[in-house]
Parts: sequence; C-alpha cells; structure tokens
Amino acid sequence: MVTSYRLDDLAQRIGGEVRGDPGRTVRGVATLEDAGPHDLSFLTNPRYRRAAAASGAGAILVGAGAELAGRDLLEAREPYVALAQLLELFHPQPAVHAGISPDARIGEDVRVGRDVQVGPFAVIGDRSELGDRAVIEAGCILGRDCRVGCDTRLSPRVVLYGGTQVGARCIIHAGVVLGADGFGFATSSGKHRKVPQVGRVVVDDDVEIGANSTVDRAMLGQTHIGSGSKIDDLVMIAHGVRLGPDSLLAGQAGIAGSARLGARTTLGGQAGVAGHLELGDGVTVAAKSAVFRDLPDGAFVAGVPAIDHAVWKRSLVSLKRLPELRSRLQELQTRLAALEQRLPGED
Amino acid sequence: MVTSYRLDDLAQRIGGEVRGDPGRTVRGVATLEDAGPHDLSFLTNPRYRRAAAASGAGAILVGAGAELAGRDLLEAREPYVALAQLLELFHPQPAVHAGISPDARIGEDVRVGRDVQVGPFAVIGDRSELGDRAVIEAGCILGRDCRVGCDTRLSPRVVLYGGTQVGARCIIHAGVVLGADGFGFATSSGKHRKVPQVGRVVVDDDVEIGANSTVDRAMLGQTHIGSGSKIDDLVMIAHGVRLGPDSLLAGQAGIAGSARLGARTTLGGQAGVAGHLELGDGVTVAAKSAVFRDLPDGAFVAGVPAIDHAVWKRSLVSLKRLPELRSRLQELQTRLAALEQRLPGED
Amino acid sequence: MVTSYRLDDLAQRIGGEVRGDPGRTVRGVATLEDAGPHDLSFLTNPRYRRAAAASGAGAILVGAGAELAGRDLLEAREPYVALAQLLELFHPQPAVHAGISPDARIGEDVRVGRDVQVGPFAVIGDRSELGDRAVIEAGCILGRDCRVGCDTRLSPRVVLYGGTQVGARCIIHAGVVLGADGFGFATSSGKHRKVPQVGRVVVDDDVEIGANSTVDRAMLGQTHIGSGSKIDDLVMIAHGVRLGPDSLLAGQAGIAGSARLGARTTLGGQAGVAGHLELGDGVTVAAKSAVFRDLPDGAFVAGVPAIDHAVWKRSLVSLKRLPELRSRLQELQTRLAALEQRLPGED
Repeated sequence: MVTSYRLDDLAQRIGGEVRGDPGRTVRGVATLEDAGPHDLSFLTNPRYRRAAAASGAGAILVGAGAELAGRDLLEAREPYVALAQLLELFHPQPAVHAGISPDARIGEDVRVGRDVQVGPFAVIGDRSELGDRAVIEAGCILGRDCRVGCDTRLSPRVVLYGGTQVGARCIIHAGVVLGADGFGFATSSGKHRKVPQVGRVVVDDDVEIGANSTVDRAMLGQTHIGSGSKIDDLVMIAHGVRLGPDSLLAGQAGIAGSARLGARTTLGGQAGVAGHLELGDGVTVAAKSAVFRDLPDGAFVAGVPAIDHAVWKRSLVSLKRLPELRSRLQELQTRLAALEQRLPGED
Repeated sequence: MVTSYRLDDLAQRIGGEVRGDPGRTVRGVATLEDAGPHDLSFLTNPRYRRAAAASGAGAILVGAGAELAGRDLLEAREPYVALAQLLELFHPQPAVHAGISPDARIGEDVRVGRDVQVGPFAVIGDRSELGDRAVIEAGCILGRDCRVGCDTRLSPRVVLYGGTQVGARCIIHAGVVLGADGFGFATSSGKHRKVPQVGRVVVDDDVEIGANSTVDRAMLGQTHIGSGSKIDDLVMIAHGVRLGPDSLLAGQAGIAGSARLGARTTLGGQAGVAGHLELGDGVTVAAKSAVFRDLPDGAFVAGVPAIDHAVWKRSLVSLKRLPELRSRLQELQTRLAALEQRLPGED
Repeated sequence: MVTSYRLDDLAQRIGGEVRGDPGRTVRGVATLEDAGPHDLSFLTNPRYRRAAAASGAGAILVGAGAELAGRDLLEAREPYVALAQLLELFHPQPAVHAGISPDARIGEDVRVGRDVQVGPFAVIGDRSELGDRAVIEAGCILGRDCRVGCDTRLSPRVVLYGGTQVGARCIIHAGVVLGADGFGFATSSGKHRKVPQVGRVVVDDDVEIGANSTVDRAMLGQTHIGSGSKIDDLVMIAHGVRLGPDSLLAGQAGIAGSARLGARTTLGGQAGVAGHLELGDGVTVAAKSAVFRDLPDGAFVAGVPAIDHAVWKRSLVSLKRLPELRSRLQELQTRLAALEQRLPGED
C-alpha cells in the first residue's frame, strides 16, 4: 500500500510553504538522482543546485528563498529538519516485537521493563536492568549491573562491560563496546603494570553511537557522554573522558584519557584530542586535526597541533608562497651585491 | 602428506622461467628468513635483496632480470602475481562443509542456495537470500531482506543490517558492520535531530572488506562499493559514498558522507576524504593525507589538506630550509644597513 | 562489608611513607573530585595540583617531595605504580567461575586446561587448546588450531582466526579480531588478485589488546606481538608486523605490513608507521605522526612525515614566524630600492 500526500498537506506538517502547485502529490522521498515524478527530493546543500535542476523529482524541498525555475517547491525555514520530519512520515519505525528470545540468556535478578525485546544469543548479566521498550538485538552481551534506559536500542553484537549505564532513547550501533578497560599502565624499569580500571561508563539520554566505536571505563569514577551527543563510527573515547551534551564526533575521531570537552563540541573526522585537556563549550576541531592544549569556549581550530582556524588558513597560504619568498630573497641578494660593488669599500 | 614440485613444473604453471637447476624440487613457500633448502622464497621488494642473498631458501622467485648469484631462480614477469598463484597451489582452500548448524536461527522465507554453510549462533533475518556455496560463519547476524551472493564468505561476527546486499565471491572479515545508520542529524537550536537513514548498502562482486571496518547505509538510495575493490581493516565508509571498482583502501582510511570516488582509487593508510567531494578515476591519496576538494582523474595527492604530491614534496623541502632562509635574510639586513650608513641621508 | 586500612599499613604495602597522621584510615580510592574523608585520592600529574588542594579526600597519594599543606599524605617513589597496587588491594579480581557453558560449542580434540571458563555462545574450533584458568567469555569465536595460554582472558566477542596463538596472562578486550587475512593483493592490468594469507598471529605473554583492535595474520610466517606489550582500542596491526616486547600503542595507532618495531616502542594516539620499515628499540612516535623511514634506537619523532621531535618543534616556530619574515623582506626591498635610486646607474 502506497500512501500519497499533497504538497500543501506536507507544508502544514513541517510548518513550511508551497511554491507552485499545492495539489501535487508525492509518494516518497528520493535523492535528486533517483527521484521520479511521484517523489519529493531535496536541495539542502548548494553544491547540488545543478543536480536539482536536472532532477526528475515531482517536487523539491528547499530552504527559504531558493530559486528553482519551473519547479513545484516545498519551502522550509530549516530544510534539513523538515527532511528529517518527512522521512519519519514516509518511513515510520517498524513496531517493536516485544518478547525475549528463548535463545537469549538472562542472568539472575535482572529487571526487565514492559515490552522489552531481547534477540537470540543475547546475554544479560546478573542484576542488570532493561527499561521499558528497550530493544537488545541478537548477540548483544551485557555484563553484570548494567542499566539500559527506556526506548533505547542496542543493535546486534553490542557489548556492555559490567556496570555500564546507557540512558533513555539511545541508539547504540552494532559492534560498539562500552566499558572495556582504559589504557592505564604504570611503567617501572621498562615494564608496564596494569592499573586496575574500576570505574565505569555512563551514557546519558538521547545519545547515538556509531558502529564499532569504543568508550572505555574510567580508572575510577566515570567516563561520561553527555545527553544528546551523537558519535559516528570507529570513534574512540578513552577512560575518564567527559564529553558535554549535544556534541558531534565524526568518524574515527579520538579523545585521549581524562580530557574534558564542553557542551556542543564538534570534532571532524579523524580528529584527535590529547589527554587531560580542558575544552570549553562550543569548540569545533576541523577534520584530521589534533588538539594538544586547552581551548576556550567557542574556539574553532585546525592543524596538528591545532591552532586558530583562521591562523591555520593563513599559514597554509604562507607555506604555498615559500618558493616565491626564496626567489625574492635571491633577487635582493643579487641587487645588494651590485650596490656594494659600486660603493667604495672601507678597507 | 607433502607434495613437492620441480621448478620447471612451477615455471610452467606461472608462465615463467627457471634460471638455474630446473630439476630442483620445493615443498612449500616461506619467507626469506624462515625458508630452508626445500622451500621456495621470493624477492618482490628490492628492500630485501640482502635478506635474499642470505636466505637458506632452496630457490627464489624473482622479477625479470633480477640477479642473485649462485641461486636457483624462478623468474616471472609479475612476480607478486606469481607468488599469489604459488601460494594457491601450496595452500589450497579447505573444502566448505555445507550445512546449516542446528544452532543457527533462520528467519521466515529465507532462500538458501545449494551447498551453503551457516555456522552456530548465526541469525538470518526474514526474506534474506544466501547464494550457492555462501559461507556464513559463526555469530554472523543478518537483518531482514539481505542478499549474500554466490561463493561469498562472511567471517565470524559480521553484521548486515536489514536490506544490505553483498555480491558474489566477496570476503567480509570478522567484525565488519554493513548498513548501520549514517551519521545524519538536523541541528536546530543546538539540538541534533536524527535524520532517518532509510537507504541501504550495496557491495558489488569480488570485494574484500577487512576486520572491524564499517560501511553505513545511505540516508536514501545506496552506499555503493564497486566490484573488485579491496578494503583493509578499521576503514570507515560513510553514508551515501560511492566507491568505484577496483579500488584499494588501506587500513584506517575514512571516506565522509556522499563523496564519490572513481575507479581504481587508492587511499593510503589513515587517509581521509571529506564529504560531498568528487574524485576522478585512478586517484591516489598518500597515507595520512586528507582530501578537502574535488580531484581530477589520475591525481596523486598528499598532505593535509592534500595537494599535488610533487608540490607537497617541494613544500617539505622549503620548510626544512626555513631556518637557512631566516639567516640569509638576517645577513642581507646587516649588509643593507652598512650600505645605508655609508650613503649620505637626504634629511 | 567495607574494609578500612590505616595509612601506615598502606605505606608498608607499597614501600612508601606517611607524611601526617599514620593512624588515619581509608576505605577506598577515589578521584580528587569524588573523594570524601574516608577515601584515599592521588596526585600523580602536576596538572591536578589545584584539584588536589581542593579535594575532600581523607588522604592523598603523592610522589616523593610533593607538598600539599595540611594534608595527610602517602608518599611513594613511584606513585603511579603504588596507585596500581592500592587499586588491586581495594578491588580484588572477582573469582573465576570455572566451567563450560552448556551453550558453548566445543570442537573436536580440543584440549581444555584446569579451571577454564567458557561462556555462552562461544565457539572453540577443532584441535584448539585452552590453558589452565583461561577465560573465554560469551560470544568468542576461535577457529581451528588456536592456542590460548594460562590465565588469559578473552572478553566477549573476541575472534581468533584459525591457528592464532595467544600467550599466558593476556587480556584481549571485546571485539578484537586476531588473524584475519592481511591486505595482500597482486595487481595486474588494474585488477587485484588476492595473495593467500597463510601465516598466523602469535601474541606473547602478558599482552593486553584494547577493544575492537585488529591484528592480521602474516602472508607467510607470523605477525608477532612481543611479550608485555600493551595495545589500546581500535589499533590496527597489519600482516607480517613484528612488534618488540614492552611496547605501548595508543588508541587508533596503525602499523602497516611487514614493519619491524623494536622493544619498548611507544606510538601516540592516531600515529602510523609505514610498511616494511625497521624501527630500533625505544622509539617514540608522537601522537598523530606518521613514520615513513627507518629509525635508530631511541629516536623520538613527530610530524608527517615524522622527523626528530626537536627539529619538528623548531619548524613549527619557523612556520609561525613566516608572516614576520615576509614583512621584513618587504621592508628590505623598499630600503634597497631607495638606495638604488640614490646611486647613479651605469647605463
């Protein structure tokens, strides 16, 4: 069964406006490339303006003031937010099939909320707690004394070491490991002695963590992921890190031990933050950069070691002009030598 | 039972030639260091010439024209290809023990081809399809509507999210996650709202993906890995990426969302490509480099941000000479000041 | 039940001294921030001196000569080693509950030592060997002919490909994959042919490997991790690498194929080492750096490509002063032109 929607209906749902035929109907959302006459597509990145012009889409979602001649447009003040809303409308979440697989192994004194789903070959350790409507997919392994909040989903093969806490409405993707030992060794005479890692990992509400990322338990106390933070794939968060709420960590970023990052931190892909640093709120670190010193609120940095982004950009330009600098210096040297020859020496 | 081969027999099999005793027999292939008189070793990298001279190997596989005095040599035009052939000869693949483990859980309406192997604790989602001779090892978890091609092997603990397609003759290593949600969030007033990721991952034929790598599903449409591409461990490919055929991505490389890479792309280890870029065919990105702009066919780039490799090399040299530049400038300044003193001023 | 200890008792156990009240008792170890009057805290990093002064801790572990007015101090020559000892004292390892889960699948001719623990949904391949007191947690999958030494723990969901050997007293964290195929392809006419990877991985005694790290099997012979080495999360070690004993590899570091690293190697986070290199003993590579050439014993390098650390630091300073260099050059040019005008030309 296909549901179709009129543009004016969609406009009302997203708080936007139609520019063109309000009665045009669409049945789904598709990329500019794939969209046909019954699809809505979207232009949220100016890079794709040409693709939008050439698209076969029946209608296009755009930001305020965007021009696309001869098109039926659905205009939204925040088009990317509207896109999220429309995708939710056209692709409703499948219902959770509550129930505990007979192939799951549930430990002693586990508290299971209402309408919880546990898949086959999942293992839930003693005294753990699963909130209402939590979904623990196949092959997940939870140690003892873990806590998974309401409406949180653990995708297949997530591991929570003992004592790990995950808040409500989180999405933890496949292969994520929360609570493995931090990398703590006391070196004496060239030998590394393990420092017991007896803290834990606490993930607040509304956090998403991408596939195969890892968050290590603190040596003492907790490694803490603030609410609303979104973490991409293959990210590593070391022991004792505190990440503020509403942060975004892109793929393969890494944060070393005991670093404290403020609210709304953004780390680009493959970026790194050294250990024991303090970063303020709203800090942005460009992709592939590495931070080796404390940063104030709102800092925007790039490079290795990371410096102010504007300064980094200028230093790139300087670097580019180095050969020119060398040749100007060479020329000056020649001219100066000529002058010196024409002036009588003192000796 | 040990099989031994005469060098002239091996030469015929690889389309090469014997230089030395064609009747010498070898029983296996070994590294230069480990090889004994009954082993064939190989010299495919000139770095190991000295080790080859010192090796106890009975015979050595070399490229055309290589000199190794007093040695029985097996010469091949493409010695590394010949090495692959010889290893296949001495180490034939173990036969697949077809059959579905009683400890696997197969969903409804799953289509299972001939001679398929499914290991214990594997889970196959409803309506999925396993091609002939596919091997799904222990602990793999496939969502609904997945497709695995003929002769493809999923190593232990691979996860395919629902809708993922993997072609024929692929090798997917342990811990790989295909089809997890892309990192898509619409930020409004500092809060990140999830943009549903309703596309999928499509992997073409003859692809190999290394341990614990991740490929995310597209927001819409597909994330696509071209046929014949080889991907190393811990590589991340974000949502909506299109990677051309016959590409090589070394360990810990990463490609950000919606980037399009051409055929025969090579990414060195820990290299990165930013989102929404277009890279032509045959592009090479040096290890540890990061690409932040579109690149034409055949580009060879290095650095962060990545620039032409030759220019990058020169800029390294310039950088090295900076202290010298500073001292030359200092000297000019002194000489100029001396000249100025000798000339009468105008004031 | 809470055990409390007098400071003089603790001092004796760690071979240290009390400065202050030897009769003060503590019941546990806590961070400076969390510690209360019955907790011992610690000051092992001068960065936290202010936090130590403000801490509510009943006593503080410090290095020799540290001053903290008005505090009961426990002084140790190597305070971080002492911290490890104290954490072991307050947090003894839980006893291993020996036994093989009825939900584990054990292959043929597996040799199981005394007091071994195997968790649910673990799979042990034919002819593998588990040493005394080995712990194989839930969901681990071992291929054929693997060997796990005495007192070694495999955390949940570790994969050992066939033939992998892990020594005694190792800790392998969740999601680690040992022995997947190395990234070896022979390219001919643009197509990549798999070079069979028929070697294995050998991990010596007392090694720890962090969550989701991967070590690939050698093409031939072995990939070897020296005894006492400690490896963090998401680290990749390629085929044929040899890592010397007592090394430390921080998170997301990577070592490319066939590189040989000496004893006591230290790689910072996100650092990389290119293939086929030889690094001496005691080499340190700074975080985010990449080594592209051989290095002698004791080298300390940084940058991409990595150079001597002191030279790298100076080049950063030079780079910073580039704009100043440009303006000085500009000034010289102006002054020289003025001089030239005042001197009569020769034409």
